[in-house]
Formats: sequence, C-alpha cells, structure tokens
Amino acid sequence: MDTSLYFLLGFGAPVGAAIFAFVLVRAINARSAGSERMQQIAALIRQGAMAFLQTEYKVLAIFVIVMFGVLVAFLPGDSLLVGVSFLVGAVLSATAGWVGMRTATGAAVRTTAAAQTSLAGALQVAFSSGAVMGMTVVALGTLGIAFLYWAYGGLDGRGDSAIASLLGMSLGASSIALFARVGGGIFTKAADVAGDLSGKVEVGIPEDDPRNPATIADSVGDNVGDVAGMGADLFESYVGSIISSVALAWALTPVVATDLWGIDESAFLDLQGDLALFPVLLAGVGIVASMLGTFTVRTNDESQVQNALLRGLIVASVLVMLGAAALISQTAVPWAVLGCVLFGVVSGVVIGKITEYYTGKDQPPAAHIAEQSETGPATNIIAGLGVGMMSCGYPVLVVCVAIFFSYQLGELYGIAIAAVGMLSTLGISLGVDAYGPVADNAGGIAEMSKCEPFVRDRTDALDAVGNTTAAMGKGFAIGSAALTALALFSTFQATANNTVAQAGGAAVFDERLLGLELTNPNVLIGMFIGGMLPFIFSAMTMNAVGRSANEMIEEVRRQFKSIPGLLEGKAEPDSARCVAISTRSAIKEMIVPGVLAVTAPVVTGFLLGVSGLGGLLAGALVTGVLMALMMANAGGVWDNAKKLIEEGHHGGKGSEPHKAAVIGDTVGDPFKDTSGPSLNILIKLMTIVAVIFVPLVVEWMR
Amino acid sequence: MDTSLYFLLGFGAPVGAAIFAFVLVRAINARSAGSERMQQIAALIRQGAMAFLQTEYKVLAIFVIVMFGVLVAFLPGDSLLVGVSFLVGAVLSATAGWVGMRTATGAAVRTTAAAQTSLAGALQVAFSSGAVMGMTVVALGTLGIAFLYWAYGGLDGRGDSAIASLLGMSLGASSIALFARVGGGIFTKAADVAGDLSGKVEVGIPEDDPRNPATIADSVGDNVGDVAGMGADLFESYVGSIISSVALAWALTPVVATDLWGIDESAFLDLQGDLALFPVLLAGVGIVASMLGTFTVRTNDESQVQNALLRGLIVASVLVMLGAAALISQTAVPWAVLGCVLFGVVSGVVIGKITEYYTGKDQPPAAHIAEQSETGPATNIIAGLGVGMMSCGYPVLVVCVAIFFSYQLGELYGIAIAAVGMLSTLGISLGVDAYGPVADNAGGIAEMSKCEPFVRDRTDALDAVGNTTAAMGKGFAIGSAALTALALFSTFQATANNTVAQAGGAAVFDERLLGLELTNPNVLIGMFIGGMLPFIFSAMTMNAVGRSANEMIEEVRRQFKSIPGLLEGKAEPDSARCVAISTRSAIKEMIVPGVLAVTAPVVTGFLLGVSGLGGLLAGALVTGVLMALMMANAGGVWDNAKKLIEEGHHGGKGSEPHKAAVIGDTVGDPFKDTSGPSLNILIKLMTIVAVIFVPLVVEWMR
Repeated sequence: MDTSLYFLLGFGAPVGAAIFAFVLVRAINARSAGSERMQQIAALIRQGAMAFLQTEYKVLAIFVIVMFGVLVAFLPGDSLLVGVSFLVGAVLSATAGWVGMRTATGAAVRTTAAAQTSLAGALQVAFSSGAVMGMTVVALGTLGIAFLYWAYGGLDGRGDSAIASLLGMSLGASSIALFARVGGGIFTKAADVAGDLSGKVEVGIPEDDPRNPATIADSVGDNVGDVAGMGADLFESYVGSIISSVALAWALTPVVATDLWGIDESAFLDLQGDLALFPVLLAGVGIVASMLGTFTVRTNDESQVQNALLRGLIVASVLVMLGAAALISQTAVPWAVLGCVLFGVVSGVVIGKITEYYTGKDQPPAAHIAEQSETGPATNIIAGLGVGMMSCGYPVLVVCVAIFFSYQLGELYGIAIAAVGMLSTLGISLGVDAYGPVADNAGGIAEMSKCEPFVRDRTDALDAVGNTTAAMGKGFAIGSAALTALALFSTFQATANNTVAQAGGAAVFDERLLGLELTNPNVLIGMFIGGMLPFIFSAMTMNAVGRSANEMIEEVRRQFKSIPGLLEGKAEPDSARCVAISTRSAIKEMIVPGVLAVTAPVVTGFLLGVSGLGGLLAGALVTGVLMALMMANAGGVWDNAKKLIEEGHHGGKGSEPHKAAVIGDTVGDPFKDTSGPSLNILIKLMTIVAVIFVPLVVEWMR
Repeated sequence: MDTSLYFLLGFGAPVGAAIFAFVLVRAINARSAGSERMQQIAALIRQGAMAFLQTEYKVLAIFVIVMFGVLVAFLPGDSLLVGVSFLVGAVLSATAGWVGMRTATGAAVRTTAAAQTSLAGALQVAFSSGAVMGMTVVALGTLGIAFLYWAYGGLDGRGDSAIASLLGMSLGASSIALFARVGGGIFTKAADVAGDLSGKVEVGIPEDDPRNPATIADSVGDNVGDVAGMGADLFESYVGSIISSVALAWALTPVVATDLWGIDESAFLDLQGDLALFPVLLAGVGIVASMLGTFTVRTNDESQVQNALLRGLIVASVLVMLGAAALISQTAVPWAVLGCVLFGVVSGVVIGKITEYYTGKDQPPAAHIAEQSETGPATNIIAGLGVGMMSCGYPVLVVCVAIFFSYQLGELYGIAIAAVGMLSTLGISLGVDAYGPVADNAGGIAEMSKCEPFVRDRTDALDAVGNTTAAMGKGFAIGSAALTALALFSTFQATANNTVAQAGGAAVFDERLLGLELTNPNVLIGMFIGGMLPFIFSAMTMNAVGRSANEMIEEVRRQFKSIPGLLEGKAEPDSARCVAISTRSAIKEMIVPGVLAVTAPVVTGFLLGVSGLGGLLAGALVTGVLMALMMANAGGVWDNAKKLIEEGHHGGKGSEPHKAAVIGDTVGDPFKDTSGPSLNILIKLMTIVAVIFVPLVVEWMR
C-alpha cells in the first residue's frame, strides 16, 4: 500500500477535522451572546464547569502519574513505550473533554440568543457545538494513533512489541473516561436531585428558578456529565476499537488468513501490513464522511429537527461505506472485511432505532408506563423496570448477529473492525448526541434570565429532540462499548497466548490457571466475580449520588434560611458554593469505584491466573452490557412517560399520575446518567487493564 | 460397600420421614380448628388453593405428556427410561406440592386456634406443618432416586446409560417447579397487589378485611406461592444435586481419581461405585439428622422463636457432618469428600446469615432505606435497589469459595457433593421456611374471623420471625440453586463429551460448534443470549403480575358496586370468583415464560452447537444468580424497612415516610415473590434441558 494514503487519511483527515472544529468555534463565538443577564449566568455555568474539570484533572493527574510509574516500573518489555502511550491517551482524552466543555458552555447562551430570532439559528449553534465535540474526539483519537503507530515503526511492516505498546493509549483513555463518567455522572445527578427536592418539593419554586442556589450547579452538571463524560466514553471506545484492530491484525496467522480469505500464503505479510493500517484509514474516511454529513443538518421547521439530525447521520454512514469500498480496492485488504464494516455501521443504527422504540415518548412502552402511573408510583416503577429489562433483548441479539457474521468474515479481527465501523461516524453521531445538553442548558439560561416564553418554547423543541437523540446515543454507546470490549477481550487472549508462548509454552503452566474453557472452575469463579462487579459498581455510584445530593440539599436549606431576601428574589444565591460542594463530593465519590475497576482484574489475575481473569472479563462483559442497557433504557422511558403525561395524558401536569411519573423519573436519573453509562467504561477499562497486565500475571503464575 | 446400608439410608430413612410426617399431620389434625367462622374461612382458603393446584396440574399434565412423548420419540439411547424417570420426577414433585399445601391449609387455622391458648402451641402447629412439607420433599426425593437407581441396576457397580437416564427425574422435577413457581408467584402477588390497591387504597378498608373479595385470594396466594412454589423449587434442587453427583461419580476417570486422592488404580472401580452411592446415603443421613433437629424446636418465649428455629437447623447440620464422617469411615469414599460436604453445609448457613444482614429489620441496610424514605418514594426505591445490588457481593464470593475448594478436594464431583451437603438438611430448613406462610395465613384468619387482638399479636410474633426465615430461605434457595446448576452444568459437559466420544470423537465436529473456550465466538454469543434470558424472564413475570392484578382489581370494583351491603359488612363477597380469576390468569401467564425456558436451550443448541449451548448456560447461571439475589434481597429489605417505620421510626404508620416505604414494599413484592425466585428454577431447568437434549444436538451437528 502507498503510505501517502496513510498520511492523507491518518494525519490529513484529523487535521482537517480540527480546522473544521476551529472554524465552527469561531462561527459560534462570532454570534451574539445575548443580554448582560444571560452572559452573567452563562459565565457562572462556564466557571463552575471549568472549576470542576480543573479539580478533577488535578486528581486525575496524580492517578496518571502513579499509573505511569507502575507501568514503567513493573511491566516487562517495552514498558516505557506503554507508559508514553498511556500518557498520550490520557492527555488527549482530557483535552477533548476540555475543548468540548468550553465550546458547549459558550454555545448554550448563544443558542438562547439565537432562539430569540429563529429556530434554525438556534439549531445551527447547538448542533455546531456538538459537532465541535465530535470532531475534536475523532481528530485527537485518529491523530494520536496514527502518530504513535508511525513513531513506533508500524509502517515498517512489523508487528513487534513496540506496536503492542500502543495499547497503553487505550488504557490512558479508559482511565480518564471512567473517572470523567463516574465523577460527572455523580455531579450532574446530585445537583439535579438536590435542586428538585430542595426547590420544587420543599419551598415550591419551579425548576431552573434563579433563586435556587442549586440551579447553576444543575446546569453545570449537564455539561460535566453529558458533554465531558459522554465524550470521554466514546473517545475511549473509538481509540480502543482502532488499536485492538491493529493489534489483532498483527496477531493473525497465515493459516487463519488462508482459511478465511483463501489468499496465497506468500501474500500474507503484505496483507497483514494493510490489515493493520486499515482501521486507521477507515477512521480517516469516517472523519471526512462525518464532516460532509454535518453540512446536511439544517432546517427551519420544528418538526424536522430530528429528521435533519438523522439525515446527517445516514449521509455519513453511506459515505463511510463508499469510502471503505474505495479503500479496499486500493489495498490488499480482502472484500470480506467490507462486510464487517457494514455489520458494524448497520448494527449501530439498528440499536439506536431499538432504543428509540423502547424509550421514545410516542412509543408503546412509554404509553404503557404512563398508563401504569394511574395506579400510583409502585406500578409506574414496576412497569419501568419491566420495560428496561425487556429492552435488553433485541440490542443483545443485534450484537450477537454482528459478532457471528463479523467472525465468519474476519475472525477476531472482523469483530474489532465491526466496532471500528460502528464508531467510524462518531464525528457526527457524537455531535448529534452532544447537542442535547447544549439545548438543555440553553433552555435553563432562557428561564433564569427571564427571556420571552417563545424563546423557551424554541429551546424546548430542540431539547425534546435532544432527549430522544440522547437515548439513541446511549444505546449506541453501549453497543459500541460491547463490541469494543469484545475486541479488547480478543486482544487480551492474543496477548496472553503470546506471552505464554514466550515464557515457554502452555506446558510450563498449571492448566487451571491458563485454560479458558467453561469446564475450568477458575473460569467459572472469575465469571461470577466479573458478573457481580457491575452490580456492586452500580450500587456504589447510585449511593454516591444519594450522599452527594444530601450534602447539597443541606447547603441549599442553609442558604434559604441564612440569606435574607433570597426566596423573594431580592438577593442572589451563593451558587458557587453549591458547585464547589458538588465538585468536592463527586470527586471524592469517584475514587473508590474507580480504584475498584482498576484493581479487580489485577487481583483476580494474581489469585486465579489467566483463567480467572478471562472469566472475570467475560462475566463483566455480559452483565455489564445488560445492566447498562436496562438502566439506560428504563431511565429514558421513565423520563418520557413523565413528558407524555405532561402533554396532557392521564390527567396532565400536577395530577396524581404525574406525581407518580415524577417519582419514576427521579429513580431513573441515576440509572441513566450515572450508573448505567459508567458500566460501559467499567467493562472496557477492566478489559484493557487485563490486556496490559496479563504479562505480569503470566510471569507470576510461573 | 455393604448394600444393606444403601437400603437402610436410601429406603429406610425416607420411609421413616414419611411416617414421621404422617404422625405430624395426625397431630395437627387432632387439634381444635377453632370457631365455626374460622373454619369457614379456612375452608374457603383450602378450596381456593386446591382448586388452583387442580387447574395447574391439569395444564401441567398436558405438558408432561407432550414432553414424555418428545423424550421417548426423539432421544437416542434409553429414551424410554429417560421418559419414565421424567414422569417419576414430575409426579413426585406434584405430590410433594399437594401434600405440603393440604397440610399448610389445614394447619393455618389450627395455628390461629392454638394461639388463643399459647404461643408455644401455635409455634408447634405452624412449625409442624412446615416440617411436614420439608419431610415430604426429602422423603419423596430420596426414595424416588434410591428406587430408580436400584431398579436401573446401579447397585451392580456399572455406570451405564440406564443410570444416565436418571437425569430425566431432574427434568421432571424442574418442569413442575418452574410452572409452580411462576404460576404460584403470579397468583400470590396479583392477589396481594390487587387486594391492597382496591381495598386499602381505593375504599380505605384495612388489610385482610373480610369485606374485600380479594382477601381470600391473597391468603390462597400465600399457600400456592410460598408453600407449593418454594417446595417444588427445593425439591428440584435436592433431586438435581443428588442425581448430578451420581452421574459425575460415574464420569470420573482413574487418572483424575488418582491425581486427586492418590488412590491405587486397582481400587478405582470400588471407589467409583461407592462415590455414586454416597450422595444417596448422605441424603438419608440428612433426613435422620433433620428429624432429630425438629425435636429441639420448642419455646414458649416470644423472643426466642427465631433462636429455637435456628437451634434445630444447627443441630441438624452438626449431625449431618457426624453422619457423613461415619459414612465415609464405612466406605471407600475418600476423606477429602467430607471437606466438600462441610463447604456445602457451611456455605448454606453463611449465605443465610448474609441475607439476614441485608434484609433484616434491625440491620443497617433496612435502617438506611427507612431513613431514605424521609425524602420520598424515589429515594426509598433508589436505596432499595442499591442495597439489592450490593447484597450480591458476599453471597457470590461464598459460592466462589465453595466452588474453589470443593473442586480442589473432589473436582466436578466435589462441587456436586457440596450442593448435596448444602441441601442435606432440607428436611428441617424447608420446614423453618415453610412455617412462615402458615403463620402469615394464621394471622389473616385471626383478622377475618375477628379474634381477640392478643391472638393476632401472637401470630404476628410468629409471622415477623417468618419474614426473616423466609428471606434466609430465599438466600439458601438461591445458593443451592447456584451450586446445583453448576453440578448440572458439569453433568452437561460430561454428557456432551461422552456423546461426542461415541459419535467418533471431537475431530468429527466443527471446533466452533464443540469447543467451550471463551475464545469461541459461539460461546460468547451463547453467553450473551443466556445472560439476557433472566432479564427477559423477569420482565415477563413482572408484567404478568401487573396484568393479573388489573384483572382482579376490576372484579373487586365490580363486586363493591354490584353487591349491596358488601362495604357495610352485611353481605358476603364472592371470593371464589376472585380466586378463579387469579387462577385463570396465573395459569395463562405462566405458559409463555415456561415454554421460553424449555425451548431456548434447545434452539440455541441447534443453531450454535454445544458451544453456544454451554455459553448460554454459563451466561444464564451468572446473571440468573445475581438477578435472583438482587431481587429477593431488595424485596426483603423494602418489606422490613416498611415494618421498621411501622414500629414508630421516622414518623411511624401513616406518615409520609411510611407511604414512601409502602411504595417500595409494593415494588418489592413481585421482585421477591415472583420474578426473583423463578430465576432459580430457570437456570436449573435450562441446564437440565441441555443435559437431556445434548445428545440430539450432537447428532444434529454432525
């Protein structure tokens, strides 16, 4: 293959995306930021969000430095390269979060301002902001991988240990992602729950009321949870899937390649080199396709917002397939691999559609829950949990079909490529997703700055679509996490085999510590422990939300009591203090689950060998995906059942069924925004930790 | 080994237990059945319960006949023997349910009558009734196995295919158990929820009020769910664990035995014969130990009821260990196997204790949920789900420890023996557990027949202890289900290996259809599907409760409207009609989940081979156990948090926190009494279906 194609797509495309993002930011910033009051509020939100990121990044810096030390000191082989890759992954993930958040906080107020003039303008600003996040993630991800792969000598056509050290980048991205998702998730829901309970319930002022000291914290939470957290999550999937495809390409053997694709064995080395480059090239193609897709997202008709967004996504998907076909025609990559890409791209869209069915406001499940609210909160909750559990069925089957056929077409490499395919349009799909919190914040700003009602109506129209796209985005995030974790799991197996072969072959080891058969008790024990971790992890994060919310409720009560004139609207609340409390407790609460995720695989590996570790990953993968789907979809559908009632069904706002639905929605909050999404990262992080540390485990087992 | 020991323990002990149960029934029936009003009510409950069983058994008879035909027509080898074993298992399970239910419905009213005189008498009656259930289950189980094993020539010292056909008995027991648990679970919770919502909430009459047409149905439900359902569940575990130990003993190879126990290879055949008999003998020892244990359950002091029950359990456990040691000294069974028994017995007690902690009324988790009720139902629900998820941790670790060490001591056979050990004291532990619903019903009868308040106080004291023992019993049921399913899973592997060897060895087959490594995509796909099934199954059963409850609510409303004088207490409700509705809808609703459980493994096997089937079982085992623990414990702790508030904490009865806690309790009802317990059986049933049908799958794969 001509390496100029590599530089064009691996460097050129992401640099182009970065420039595109920069132009978008300039265009957003050139717009009016609205009245002074709006700017003040926006400034408070941005300060809060940035203060959270700063505090979080300080803690993460310590973690990253310690982890870097551990990697370099203890890992055998090219440990320094692993460490460097780790740093690159961590820094890029943090950078993407930073850029996305700065953009989102700047864009929200401009969305409000634009909504004063037209819906089209408001959509433009909000979606541009999402696109900046999407483009930044894919640009930094692709550029980082392309650069390291080149720097480590990947273009020389050898898959040596330097190439394997690229996996460190995935570890770096995962670590940041876990803390960002958990910390951000706790922050956003603690602020949300505290704001609702102390404001709406206790003193009877409406949501987003400027008198409530927790209101700003709530808006800050939308940014740190839904923008930075989601971005870090998908950055990790993106990077993980590409890197594991690269690693699995180099783990292919001539026999497998010949069996699969009937190639001539003499052509194998060329083929392998091209297969290793293909995911990076595909990422580049996806970036270009996503950029082109964004140009089609435009409408001035309220009812068409969702279609406009979907149109962009579908255009990008079609372009990716065409680009992938063109790539394959230029390289030694077999056409069967195109099938894997197709299964990935289609599965992502289908899972999104299924999620839309189970969570959508105008779909039967939401109507069922709304109806069950008639008999009170208990039946609402039971129905919501039932829908959540039921909603696991089809997405899992879709993932199974994708696994089955990608494996047929390309073995483990095929599964990894399906994951890359699914994520190739991330530039635009993340944009569609990250637009939601901007629209949400824009509505909050409109409320707090007392804009005309029609402004809020317009932002609400954007926000309603945002809820659906957010649910679809979550389904997509889980689906891609499942495939990525599976790709990483395959990499784990390849790495383990490799390390064992270097250490003298399987015969040197106790079979019970090495075999991955279900007959092996260590595998079963590992599966039980791994399966249990998502339950424990969810419990921890849900409890953390409760504790943090309680702390903030006390602060809000204190302010209502001690600041004279606050409730009458004559004095300003000390919202910075609420933000600080939420920040402190979110950071504190993210540490235990985070450390658990990193240490559990290592400890299990040392106790139960590769067998136990493999079992742990498989168990965590299965229950993690299921619990994530269940929690995300239950949370989404509770929210929309409430919205359905608010539209006037079953008695409408303020009725008993509505109260029941509000309770369901509150239960769903930590489900869908804290615990559920964190599980995506838990399974990816544990797998990549296993990949990185399996050489140590093997050494220990001897 | 002297075969007289086999006849003594395999036939003598269960016959003794049957006589003991008969004496207990006579003693119960000899007691006063109270006033005419009490007897009327009791008769209604018994009629309802028996009518339900009759209807259920009619449907099951069709299922059993069809299944018998399928087994005999399609299975290769001794298919007729498998069919006969299947019939025996099904008939014995149904018989045990019938006896237990007749006894329980007769004992409840006599417990009420005895409570008019003394607490000791009431405890005696209620516990005796539970003991009858326990003794009937172990007597029928042991006798059935011992008889078939003898009839199939097991005492000749050959483990041929006739012995393997014994597994059919486990399939029979499982099939009845699933339908009994699901049907009974739907009945009991539909009646409970409907009674609460239509009576307490809509017309404001108290629980168990005789004017409510659903009250009798609610009492019937306690019997069909908690007595018949629980009995069938544990009958299945009991039979499954014993039979799989027998099968695994015959699957042992001289190499494994020599490795494990350092025996002389020439002694292997003797050893194998004794190992195969050992589980049956151990069951006999357990029966004797349980009988002796029951004599220590006696107290006249309210605060000592729980201790009295525990004392019986612990005495029985110690006696089992002594008896097992005596057995081993008389046979060729190695002493290491005693360790497996010990791990089983101890794990059962420890899991019970952990469950007591997570669900107990006076423990921190219940207090935490009660406190969270202060901020409303949403925080109550979140806290309950959090406790439920968290409670999965330690029990799973205990199971893992038991697996690890039993495997060390006796390989797969050791795991199966641990399950037998855990279940050996079932005669008394099921008695302790089945006593709860009798006490509960006794309270209901006291209320409905307007007894003096002190009578209700005494039955309440018994009932409160019943709640704790019920939660412990559920933990025990899940723990034993996990070990039994694991033992059956090992049998599945042994059977698959055996069939493959007969069909020409592994080389004849596609590795992807046969291998059980986690690297095999079919295994992973199977794991995803298997892992998903408990979620789908739970959703189905929860929704079924909702639908059935709605149907009954409408009937209750109709009666309140159309029967003049009903609300004033001047007319009798048509409670038989409510029972009929609940029966009809429970039977209707149990069919789809039941058929799903039976067909899913078969279809997966045909599509994805032994690999996919093995993956399915492993996935279902892991998520099934976790979901069952989560749901049972969350349900239990919600119930007790409510009781804690009712004792006067956080505002007491009628306060806002109490209302929140009632909502949590209602959500927990289908969790702990329908969906959660059904999962135990789901995983066992799917595994035994796989064991039975794997020869067909292997044939198809060729």
